[in-house]
Amino acid sequence: MTANRFDAPLLLSRLAAIIGEAAVVTDTAAMSAYLAEPRDLYHGRALCVLKPASASEVARILALCNESGTAVTPQGGNTGLVGGQTPDESGAGVVLSLERLKKRRHIDAAADAMTLEAGVTLLEAQEAASSVDRYFPLSLASEGSCAIGGNLATNAGGVHVLAYGSMRDLVLGIEVALADGRLLSTLGALRKDNTGYDLTRLFVGSEGTLGVITAATLKLFPRPRSRAVAFLGLSDPAQALDLLAFVKSRAGPSLHAFELVSRIGLDLVLKHIPGARDPLAQAHKWYALVEIAAFSAGEAERLCAEILAAAHEAGLAEDATLAQSLEQAKELWRLRENLSEAQKREGGSIKHDISVPVNAIPQFIAEAGRRLREAIPDARPVPFGHMGDGNLHYNVSQPVGGDKAAFLSRWDEVNGIVHGLVAECHGSISAEHGIGRLKRDLLRETKDAVALDAMRAIKKALDPKGILNPGVLL
Amino acid sequence: MTANRFDAPLLLSRLAAIIGEAAVVTDTAAMSAYLAEPRDLYHGRALCVLKPASASEVARILALCNESGTAVTPQGGNTGLVGGQTPDESGAGVVLSLERLKKRRHIDAAADAMTLEAGVTLLEAQEAASSVDRYFPLSLASEGSCAIGGNLATNAGGVHVLAYGSMRDLVLGIEVALADGRLLSTLGALRKDNTGYDLTRLFVGSEGTLGVITAATLKLFPRPRSRAVAFLGLSDPAQALDLLAFVKSRAGPSLHAFELVSRIGLDLVLKHIPGARDPLAQAHKWYALVEIAAFSAGEAERLCAEILAAAHEAGLAEDATLAQSLEQAKELWRLRENLSEAQKREGGSIKHDISVPVNAIPQFIAEAGRRLREAIPDARPVPFGHMGDGNLHYNVSQPVGGDKAAFLSRWDEVNGIVHGLVAECHGSISAEHGIGRLKRDLLRETKDAVALDAMRAIKKALDPKGILNPGVLL
Repeated sequence: MTANRFDAPLLLSRLAAIIGEAAVVTDTAAMSAYLAEPRDLYHGRALCVLKPASASEVARILALCNESGTAVTPQGGNTGLVGGQTPDESGAGVVLSLERLKKRRHIDAAADAMTLEAGVTLLEAQEAASSVDRYFPLSLASEGSCAIGGNLATNAGGVHVLAYGSMRDLVLGIEVALADGRLLSTLGALRKDNTGYDLTRLFVGSEGTLGVITAATLKLFPRPRSRAVAFLGLSDPAQALDLLAFVKSRAGPSLHAFELVSRIGLDLVLKHIPGARDPLAQAHKWYALVEIAAFSAGEAERLCAEILAAAHEAGLAEDATLAQSLEQAKELWRLRENLSEAQKREGGSIKHDISVPVNAIPQFIAEAGRRLREAIPDARPVPFGHMGDGNLHYNVSQPVGGDKAAFLSRWDEVNGIVHGLVAECHGSISAEHGIGRLKRDLLRETKDAVALDAMRAIKKALDPKGILNPGVLL
Repeated sequence: MTANRFDAPLLLSRLAAIIGEAAVVTDTAAMSAYLAEPRDLYHGRALCVLKPASASEVARILALCNESGTAVTPQGGNTGLVGGQTPDESGAGVVLSLERLKKRRHIDAAADAMTLEAGVTLLEAQEAASSVDRYFPLSLASEGSCAIGGNLATNAGGVHVLAYGSMRDLVLGIEVALADGRLLSTLGALRKDNTGYDLTRLFVGSEGTLGVITAATLKLFPRPRSRAVAFLGLSDPAQALDLLAFVKSRAGPSLHAFELVSRIGLDLVLKHIPGARDPLAQAHKWYALVEIAAFSAGEAERLCAEILAAAHEAGLAEDATLAQSLEQAKELWRLRENLSEAQKREGGSIKHDISVPVNAIPQFIAEAGRRLREAIPDARPVPFGHMGDGNLHYNVSQPVGGDKAAFLSRWDEVNGIVHGLVAECHGSISAEHGIGRLKRDLLRETKDAVALDAMRAIKKALDPKGILNPGVLL
């Protein structure tokens, strides 16, 4: 662990000498927003919050912190869900906010690439792509406030991974400040570069433990000219799996999203979200939301309608509706996107972000439900999410009318049941949210021991004093 | 560097104890095929060639070599073009052939994944995918003999990178034997797994310097149901660039290949390759080969014809032909695929495997030609390749009727001219072939110094004694 070799006043004055006094925040009220994370699971303390304005300032901060043995917690939009952006409670370290690194350094439609600094929000990145008639596909609930630096650090996923992959797949190069204060760059618009180890993707997803990403060159894609969104009523997850294979074989990469929703999930949305309405005439036990995109006007709607008709004929759906307008498409998406919020309003909910091989989803849902009912007879599993990626947000709502605190006190037990089954299915205990502080111990228990050792060896090689985000991930 | 701590007889007897005497090849004649690479640029020597039959045998070999300080050169199909699979001339090390690791451990259409051992050839991998009605897109000239272990170790590219990426994009997980003899596994059919550093992609493309890949889980894709191949006559590379942007915006991910061919390249193919014929009525200065794939019968042909007509109307092509049969499509591809062979038959040729940002291709071709003509007035640049990826095989043929040896003696000078311009264009000196022994010194001169240091630190962390492929890459 780190041990501060400077006293606080000396460190603060040297930090101020690098980035200016105004950028070294020590006021308790001004710091508070940086010391807690959105779900209030973690609160930390810090000597100060630093707000450098450039990559070279970030690098010089790290050089100083490395010299002094000061722990550094990098922070983007502070929207992460596993506590990876929150310092520990010692108060001896610093929070390094990237919020002032906002430059759009280079946006180049002809090269299908844009180089943005870490503090640019995901929404701003999407807009930068649109401004040159291109598409940047990463899309997730917090896109208005999360920063691409954080998206990179956590290898963010979201609703279009099925077609475009997660952040590791969307990045061409990065600029990263190393623990010793040097800047490493793989920035650039090269689509192919076979000159050594894939450092870019090593840093992406390392949760700020190997370096602090200050900028990235992101891939741009052709802008889809048409989109179709359908909502299908299904009998069970096995039918959803058959439907997924069917749609993939007919749509190929035009399939942009395949989300699974349960009846209980839809009921919670209808109950708690104003304006939500059931898009199908009858109730079904399960639903799939399917999005198809294409590159000429009307083509997505044509292809989607054709696939829906064929799927119906093949007995792969009980009913279906195809959005007839952009507004209807948004309404269908809102049903899916409000599942978390609706569950929150319903009471206590114990959450999991897991993945299994796509074809294991039906047996996973069945068996997890069975084991949970055995432990807590009235618990209500509300599995939903990115079925096309094998990624479920397997969230369990408290029994109707039960005591919220009593239910939440069984968090570890419920986690144990769900993660135990994940292990049996050769799945992952973190599909897209990362490890952070929340799953650090769980990682130790579940990850291949040799892989863990290799990660530790790499961590030690690149951050020998352990100043970068201690307590997170490893 | 490594220093053998055992004498040869002891080492050989302990190796034989692990894999059996028959799998330890010491006979000079039997070893010779493993000690030279296909272009005869590198010849090496070795104590023996080892042919383990399983991952655990590979791991035990490495443990022993690590103990004894013996250099290990891993080898797949021995088709690499940069000497990465050839031992040095000391004769103190061993060649570790993966050719007997041939198991198809798991092929699962429902999970869109297959787990194959390293010695399976690329062609066999493609066939394994086809056998379950899926598609594995990696495709390159040596696919009949190259092994997927080598494809993984070198992050192989090929003609479909534009749509599917290179090997790093096609792999879900690996099994790799570390230098110390432990097996690390990230195998599995998970599409999303955010549990720590991306070890998989770190080992993929590390050219056998961090570990020996023994198996991999590869992605499977829906099988395209139609394919269209067109050959277009163009005025210049700038028109090719405009055409590329035009086709991408209309085809999106249906664009499977976009290859650039020059008139001089086509002339060489027509001259040297029996049966080759010019597919267009008039001569053009440049050509593009375009492949479109789709997921319903006839759709690729329809889309391609529509795009060709629109491109013609927009003044983006001088002429075009669309293959009317599978055989015609193959003929068009053969023109492209025989460019290297035709150049070889024409005489001496100095080769480069470079990439630049896609939109820099026209000025790169113009300026490289100008500089080369200044140095060697009659030299004939024959740039061709994966324009969609910004990747050119910028090969320079000797002057007509000139002396081959005299021309080839200027290899370093020509390399210097081409790679100098690559650096000015922020390009890469190895787009897809890797570094191996051929470009090791060049890598030192051209790569970001901090990135090189980070690579060395990682190498040292994972292979502290430096037994894995010494002399290659770093």
